[in-house]
Amino acid sequence: MKLYTPVKQNLSLFEKHQPLIERAIEALHKRENYEVFPEMPSPKHYGETAEAEQKQQFESQLGSRFERLKQSHDTWVVSDEKSPFTGKRLEVSYPAYKDYSTYIATACDASSDWRQTDARTRAGILTESLERLKAKFYEVAFSTMHTTGQSFMMSFQASGPHAADRAMEAIALGYQELTRFPDRLTWEKPMGKVTITLEKFSTIVPRGLSLSIGCSTFPTWNTVPGLYASLITGNPVIVKPHPRAIYPIAVVVACLQEVLEENGFNPNIVMLAVDTDKKLITRELAENPAVKIIDYTGGSAFGQIIEALPGKITFTEKAGVNSMIIDSVSDLKAMAQNVAFSLSLYSGQMCTAPQNFFIPKDGIKVGDSHASFDEVKTAIVEAVRGLVGHPKMGHAVVGAIQSEATQKRIKEAASLGGEVLLESQPVENPEFPDIVSASPVILQVSPSDRKVFESELFGPIAFIIPTADTKESVKLASSIAREHGAISCGAYTLDDDTMDMIAREMAGAGTPVSFNLTGNIYVNQNAGFSDFHVTGGNPAGNATFTNPEFLLKRFVRVQSRVNKEA
Amino acid sequence: MKLYTPVKQNLSLFEKHQPLIERAIEALHKRENYEVFPEMPSPKHYGETAEAEQKQQFESQLGSRFERLKQSHDTWVVSDEKSPFTGKRLEVSYPAYKDYSTYIATACDASSDWRQTDARTRAGILTESLERLKAKFYEVAFSTMHTTGQSFMMSFQASGPHAADRAMEAIALGYQELTRFPDRLTWEKPMGKVTITLEKFSTIVPRGLSLSIGCSTFPTWNTVPGLYASLITGNPVIVKPHPRAIYPIAVVVACLQEVLEENGFNPNIVMLAVDTDKKLITRELAENPAVKIIDYTGGSAFGQIIEALPGKITFTEKAGVNSMIIDSVSDLKAMAQNVAFSLSLYSGQMCTAPQNFFIPKDGIKVGDSHASFDEVKTAIVEAVRGLVGHPKMGHAVVGAIQSEATQKRIKEAASLGGEVLLESQPVENPEFPDIVSASPVILQVSPSDRKVFESELFGPIAFIIPTADTKESVKLASSIAREHGAISCGAYTLDDDTMDMIAREMAGAGTPVSFNLTGNIYVNQNAGFSDFHVTGGNPAGNATFTNPEFLLKRFVRVQSRVNKEA
Repeated sequence: MKLYTPVKQNLSLFEKHQPLIERAIEALHKRENYEVFPEMPSPKHYGETAEAEQKQQFESQLGSRFERLKQSHDTWVVSDEKSPFTGKRLEVSYPAYKDYSTYIATACDASSDWRQTDARTRAGILTESLERLKAKFYEVAFSTMHTTGQSFMMSFQASGPHAADRAMEAIALGYQELTRFPDRLTWEKPMGKVTITLEKFSTIVPRGLSLSIGCSTFPTWNTVPGLYASLITGNPVIVKPHPRAIYPIAVVVACLQEVLEENGFNPNIVMLAVDTDKKLITRELAENPAVKIIDYTGGSAFGQIIEALPGKITFTEKAGVNSMIIDSVSDLKAMAQNVAFSLSLYSGQMCTAPQNFFIPKDGIKVGDSHASFDEVKTAIVEAVRGLVGHPKMGHAVVGAIQSEATQKRIKEAASLGGEVLLESQPVENPEFPDIVSASPVILQVSPSDRKVFESELFGPIAFIIPTADTKESVKLASSIAREHGAISCGAYTLDDDTMDMIAREMAGAGTPVSFNLTGNIYVNQNAGFSDFHVTGGNPAGNATFTNPEFLLKRFVRVQSRVNKEA
Repeated sequence: MKLYTPVKQNLSLFEKHQPLIERAIEALHKRENYEVFPEMPSPKHYGETAEAEQKQQFESQLGSRFERLKQSHDTWVVSDEKSPFTGKRLEVSYPAYKDYSTYIATACDASSDWRQTDARTRAGILTESLERLKAKFYEVAFSTMHTTGQSFMMSFQASGPHAADRAMEAIALGYQELTRFPDRLTWEKPMGKVTITLEKFSTIVPRGLSLSIGCSTFPTWNTVPGLYASLITGNPVIVKPHPRAIYPIAVVVACLQEVLEENGFNPNIVMLAVDTDKKLITRELAENPAVKIIDYTGGSAFGQIIEALPGKITFTEKAGVNSMIIDSVSDLKAMAQNVAFSLSLYSGQMCTAPQNFFIPKDGIKVGDSHASFDEVKTAIVEAVRGLVGHPKMGHAVVGAIQSEATQKRIKEAASLGGEVLLESQPVENPEFPDIVSASPVILQVSPSDRKVFESELFGPIAFIIPTADTKESVKLASSIAREHGAISCGAYTLDDDTMDMIAREMAGAGTPVSFNLTGNIYVNQNAGFSDFHVTGGNPAGNATFTNPEFLLKRFVRVQSRVNKEA
């Protein structure tokens, strides 16, 4: 009796990576600190020559064809990518299809073997692709920098090791869920004098073609979890990056296609589908009935369209309006420096950056003494001013502004109402004289100006809001999270009951809270294997990196039964 | 530091039931044969006096108020329930609200403590409620019989122990998922000379008010999985039974309310919301924005409306068009008897009953010889005739016809087209002279009559369809499953490759196959802890009893972080 024999089973790659996969499963269940890929771009981890070689590779790629992809194509498309640091277009061209529907037919046709192989084969191949990617982390970093405007350090960490860790997390949790129930068992039921015996066989049925829609600011970090989650569960994937941030994810797709092909699978199981502002194809791809799964990172308006598409399984991360609730602190300066960094980092172009700072109008407790509202406000404003004005730190923290829309938003922020506490200014970068950069703009508005601060103003735009008390701060923060979404929340309090109240109220609004952060840990940060990113419990998104549903929804399990007696 | 302290924690009931809960988690992960509640209605399991006492209790309940519910109400409603065995109305009245929206407000108001207690407290209380229910299994059986038309044996097994096992499965898997990740941990990240230390706290946020919409044929079996799944994950539930099948689930709700109240929780956490044909309230309840989760069993048309409601998490079981694929058999008579039973059991009023029998027109291999199409067809028809005509077995197998719609459908079936191979007839039941019963009607139609057999014809209506070969049989069965849904599939084959092909093709259509069943095991049967019921992979439904998603979708997890240094 043979049922559901895996196609093209390859146990050698699985055996090679099995210890890592099992360690990753353990780590993500313990939610402990765990790094598969070291986050520091040091020669110790990545070799003496890696940075120079890959910088060279990146530079020679500019203005030329991206030949590494092994996918089918009938044309080449020069991308809209442009460096926010230099103002220059990258002029990289990518293999493409003239008609978007050809991606769909090609990826579907390619997927039969992948659907019918087993979890071990997929896990081995996918983990191997991350090993290959590791050897490209510097190239990924340079290409991330010159598409997103992130500093080099953030580009390296977010798009390289942190993204790869998130991919590894998806592989590990996927492998665990795929193998959670036995794929073969003997079921015996004693019925008095006889025993009924059935052999039961279980198979995984992937949901079908997956579409992964990337964003302009985190082209790999936000894309690889869904990409690897769909792949480990047997689904082919079309990766549709943002037209301005293609190169970094193209490197990821190339690594995947390379390992797939080496192991006898059709590389078109994962395809890069590049479009340009002149001819966008995302909506056509998303609406096609063959597309069963959609991963989306981006703005709320299009995200809501994606979520409402009938018959699709969607995983979204949209916008969040994040709050900072300041109730009491032990060290005013330490708090101010920490929140100033959170707000300034990559000029607030992170979905986890804080926007609304709620401070009681009568001031707060600081250790055993008291600080007035103005003192707290001033501490924050001055900390931001000091940080972005720091000749070495400033430009390294803020990076560059990725989009014209964000630039425009910053320029117009001063006229939103309220009092301007700090104006936005360009932050000079000695290495890049043509950079487009902006320090945060901080406004003071009143709680009654809710219409102004309840929407996400993506970029380095912050509001300081004097509230009646912390209770009002929490009420505003939680109700905005419920109505408009939130991904992070910071809070400072010395009181246990207040901490519990803030945590409960924000949890009810689907928002995790980071309390009393000082020093080198920030509300924006989100650690693979430990922190769940987005809860799915408010309008900021319906998916979580990486909870079990993120994998489970991508396949169904079918268990058949065979009577042994017959 | 206190974060997320459970409210009204009660560890004594959890400790009492912990071994059972842990054993259930083990069993469902092994998918082994496991019964918490013995399926045979014997004095050995349930006591010498249980049947007589509960029969008495059932009879004295008829015509009177169902006083056992502890829920708030402002009126009493006499139900539409009527026995298909006697033709008499039950005349039971239930506590109700005049305005449907009062259920919503009441259940929401009642839920605060339940939301904020912990998984152990909920698991203990819910398991205890099943212990209480066990002492009512005979009453549940009599009330199921006289609402659904099931025979006594099926009523007992399906609505009593099998349903309670499915509820236990939901409690166990829910408990496992709720406690899968640590609710408190210390996260330490070495950063060169310093180590960053965060305390992380995790809490479960229930999605919100749950609505459980029952069906007329399996009032507890199809309802308790979702009911217990929502409760274990902290959500209040409004149970809206079918107007014709209330009593059995009212007993379940009464047990729950009793144990909730005993343990200091508001009994309105779970409420029975009874309606009548004159004034249905299901749609109003389902569309109310406060309802976040909907469990639904019933027809496809209303099921599609439920699935399309914006902003709801839905779990549906709708209609299936189930096939029997006959390729080759070792024993023609054994196969015929088995499929005859599957078709006749409860007069085909099961979502797992077969409807379409595909047999190659050139006949099939039978052991080492051959049987013509006509011989196979005749064997099946005669097996059904013999079974339903058996003076003792017949009426015990078919039970009664639950609804006027099914009666009408059976009467009209002969005019659907094709050749009538067996006419439906009343099956006399010596105990119930006024019973409404019907033996199966069997028609022969051709593959080109697809329009006739591709829809679900709920009840004892079957088609025998001569196909070109097994490949065509599978093509028809799988394409109908894809387009119209299927919950079960039976197949008979002696060939391993054919078995693999059938299993793969049907799995691709989200349908499990039972192969070569003979003797006392039937395609209709579905064992708690071992068989997944409905895959979610075709239009028959989007939910599975009981896979991890069935629990996971009902809550979100929020993990907050506290800096210890500050």
